[in-house]
Amino acid sequence: MVVETREIHIKTHGNSQVLDLTPGLIDALADAHITNGTVTLFVIGSTAGITTTEFEPGLVQHDLKHYYEKIAPENGYYKHEETWHDDNGHSHVRASMLGPSLTVPIVDSKPTLGTWQQIILIDFDTRPRSRTIVVQLIGE
Amino acid sequence: MVVETREIHIKTHGNSQVLDLTPGLIDALADAHITNGTVTLFVIGSTAGITTTEFEPGLVQHDLKHYYEKIAPENGYYKHEETWHDDNGHSHVRASMLGPSLTVPIVDSKPTLGTWQQIILIDFDTRPRSRTIVVQLIGE
Amino acid sequence: MVVETREIHIKTHGNSQVLDLTPGLIDALADAHITNGTVTLFVIGSTAGITTTEFEPGLVQHDLKHYYEKIAPENGYYKHEETWHDDNGHSHVRASMLGPSLTVPIVDSKPTLGTWQQIILIDFDTRPRSRTIVVQLIGE
Repeated sequence: MVVETREIHIKTHGNSQVLDLTPGLIDALADAHITNGTVTLFVIGSTAGITTTEFEPGLVQHDLKHYYEKIAPENGYYKHEETWHDDNGHSHVRASMLGPSLTVPIVDSKPTLGTWQQIILIDFDTRPRSRTIVVQLIGE
Repeated sequence: MVVETREIHIKTHGNSQVLDLTPGLIDALADAHITNGTVTLFVIGSTAGITTTEFEPGLVQHDLKHYYEKIAPENGYYKHEETWHDDNGHSHVRASMLGPSLTVPIVDSKPTLGTWQQIILIDFDTRPRSRTIVVQLIGE
Repeated sequence: MVVETREIHIKTHGNSQVLDLTPGLIDALADAHITNGTVTLFVIGSTAGITTTEFEPGLVQHDLKHYYEKIAPENGYYKHEETWHDDNGHSHVRASMLGPSLTVPIVDSKPTLGTWQQIILIDFDTRPRSRTIVVQLIGE
C-alpha cells in the first residue's frame, strides 16, 4: 500500500464554469504505482466544488449554472459581501452546498466512471482563477 | 493494509426512488478482511447519487423527492434535453448536486452509522435502471 | 500504512448552526502517526452535514442558513413529521442534500485546505445536540 500525491493545475473563467478533470486524473494515474485503491480529488479554496456529470454542452454550459442560480442567485442578499465588500457571496454558498471533494474507486488502474460520467470542477467565483486540485491516491 | 473491491447490484424504478444500500454494505463487509478503515460507495452513471438519511417512508417516499423537485423541476427547461432529445435533464442536475460518492469510516468491522442513519441511493433517472455501486474497502 | 481513528465531540445549538471542525482535526493530527494520506470526517446522525467554507460571520451566521431555508423551509410540509410527530423534516432533507462525510488529503501532516477554507459542521436539527464526528486517518 502506498500514498501518492499529485496536483492538477487549471485556469478557469469563474462564473460557474464547468471544467472536465477526468483527463488530468488519467494523466496522474498513468505514472502512479497504484492499481487498486481510491483517489480523492480536493479543490483548494472555498468558491469551487467537485462532482460528476455527463460532460456535454447543454449541461455544462447552461443547465448546472441555471439551477445553481435558482438556489443561490448572484444578485441575492449575502451578508458575506458586507464583510469583505465583494460580490461572491453566492459563490461561497453554492461551493459549500456542492462540496470541495470527491472520492472515486480505482480498479485495474482506472477510475470506475460510467461512459457518460466525467469528473468536473465547477468554479463559482466571480473572476478568473488559477485552481489547484490535490489528487491523493491510496492503494496498492 | 489491504484493498478489497465489491459491487452492489440493484434494480431501481428511477423517478427519485430512494433505496437502502446499508444491507448490501453489511453483506460486503461480512466476507471482507478489513476491521478498521474506510469504505467508498460510488454509483456508476450520472443520474443517481449517494448520501445518508433516516430510512422511513415519509422521507424516502415523499420528502426527498418533493424538495429535489423544487430545486430542479422535472418539467423545467434543460438544454441537455435538446442535445439528446430525452427527458432527464433534471435527473442529471439533481445527481450532480448530490454527488455519486460517499466515504464512511469502518470501525470494528462496522460502518459508523447512527441508529437512524442509513446509506441511500437516489435514482433520479426517468426510467427503471440496473445500477452498479462500487464498494471500495481500504484498511487493515 | 496505518489506520487511526479519532473522534471530535462537540455541542451544538442546532437550527443550522455552523461550527468549525478544523481545530479539532488539527488536534487529532498532532498525535497521529500519519504524514501523508487522507482523513475522512463523518458525522453520526442524519440531521447534520459536513463541508468547507470561509469561516467568517456573514456566511456562517446568516448566508448558509438563509439559502438552506429557501431550499427546504422550516415551515414547509414534511411527511416525515407525521411519522414521528416532530418538527425536523427540513433538518433531514437539508442534511441528506449536504451529506454527512468529507474526505480531505493530508500532505506533510496537514490538511490541504486553503487559507480561507475551514471544515464545517452544519447542525440542521431543531434542538441542541451533542455530536460525534468520526475522524478516520489512513496513510503513512
